[in-house]
Amino acid sequence: MLRTAVLVSGGGTNLQAIIDGVRDGQITNTELVKVISNKAGVKALERAEKAGIPTAVVSKKGYASIEEFNDALLSAIDDASPDLIVLAGFLVVLPEKLVKKYSNKIINIHPSLIPSFCGVGYYGLRVHEEALKRGVKVTGATVHFVDEGCDSGPIILQKAVEIQQDDTPEILQKRVMEQAEWKIMPKAIDLIANGRVTVVDRKVKVDLR
Amino acid sequence: MLRTAVLVSGGGTNLQAIIDGVRDGQITNTELVKVISNKAGVKALERAEKAGIPTAVVSKKGYASIEEFNDALLSAIDDASPDLIVLAGFLVVLPEKLVKKYSNKIINIHPSLIPSFCGVGYYGLRVHEEALKRGVKVTGATVHFVDEGCDSGPIILQKAVEIQQDDTPEILQKRVMEQAEWKIMPKAIDLIANGRVTVVDRKVKVDLR
Repeated sequence: MLRTAVLVSGGGTNLQAIIDGVRDGQITNTELVKVISNKAGVKALERAEKAGIPTAVVSKKGYASIEEFNDALLSAIDDASPDLIVLAGFLVVLPEKLVKKYSNKIINIHPSLIPSFCGVGYYGLRVHEEALKRGVKVTGATVHFVDEGCDSGPIILQKAVEIQQDDTPEILQKRVMEQAEWKIMPKAIDLIANGRVTVVDRKVKVDLR
Repeated sequence: MLRTAVLVSGGGTNLQAIIDGVRDGQITNTELVKVISNKAGVKALERAEKAGIPTAVVSKKGYASIEEFNDALLSAIDDASPDLIVLAGFLVVLPEKLVKKYSNKIINIHPSLIPSFCGVGYYGLRVHEEALKRGVKVTGATVHFVDEGCDSGPIILQKAVEIQQDDTPEILQKRVMEQAEWKIMPKAIDLIANGRVTVVDRKVKVDLR
């Protein structure tokens, strides 16, 4: 069983897709061992509790410095002894120590087709605002391993989503979640849990069977 | 009838898709008035002749300076009085005078989902090499209006294409042509010919009917 910790910051819709995937058997060989939020009282924590998953809150507010916060976050993760850490809308830049310690064991979902609309400053609704501003007709989502850069790690899965002419950032965000994020994130976890994902030369190879 | 000139440099497979589209009625209200190549003896010219389209060759070799070449190219285009200029694998940077004169009347096909893998240096097989090097799982093609920048003009149509794990740049190039380029380029011309494309605030609006 792949011990999986999920890091969240808000609503937790991607977390819910993962919980549902484990429950429905779309994600196999996976145990959700902990949900960690950097904000107290968010819906994601509620979803975790309802699913019987242990939760923890590590908030910047609770610590005097970013270093202490980083150490607390690392401790909260280490305590769960995870094989995989899933960033599901986690709006905190991970400490380098954490990224190095869990090299190729942290995955993130990004709401665009990397390398489009990614990197520093591209998160949440902002990504969709920029896509609409550029007038692209196709966007999507990407699940990737997290490395020291921003959205620069090896890509595991991507899925394209068509943009409609009357899209607002909010409408587009919802469609990208429904048609791409909630599909490829559970799928990526299942592939990893079943030993079907390897990283060679910074590129991901999936055992297609 | 939209008087359409097509600029080519080589094999002319996109030109062939356009010729076929006009013949089969997929592209309506369009007359192919001239095919201009910057290289003599290329297959694209053969395809044009076979389809009964007037051809011209304007080669850099024939002129003492880039300015003279640019003027000759502009003349060859002006002579055809085109309403639309289609760059179908035309590997020459267009003179600024030409771009300004035919503002929003020049379209180009680029073999990626802009803004990924585009800009200076990204042309032909190179685009696919870079996509495979980055390890993306989805690529595609883009038809866009040409402006003063490189691949920066308003996007008309895009189509996604999945990358397979054993793809070489050559195999990927062929799939992107077949599944995307040869579909969206004829479609874009038909939309323009039927007055269904407008550019507002550097974004393309398509009348969907």
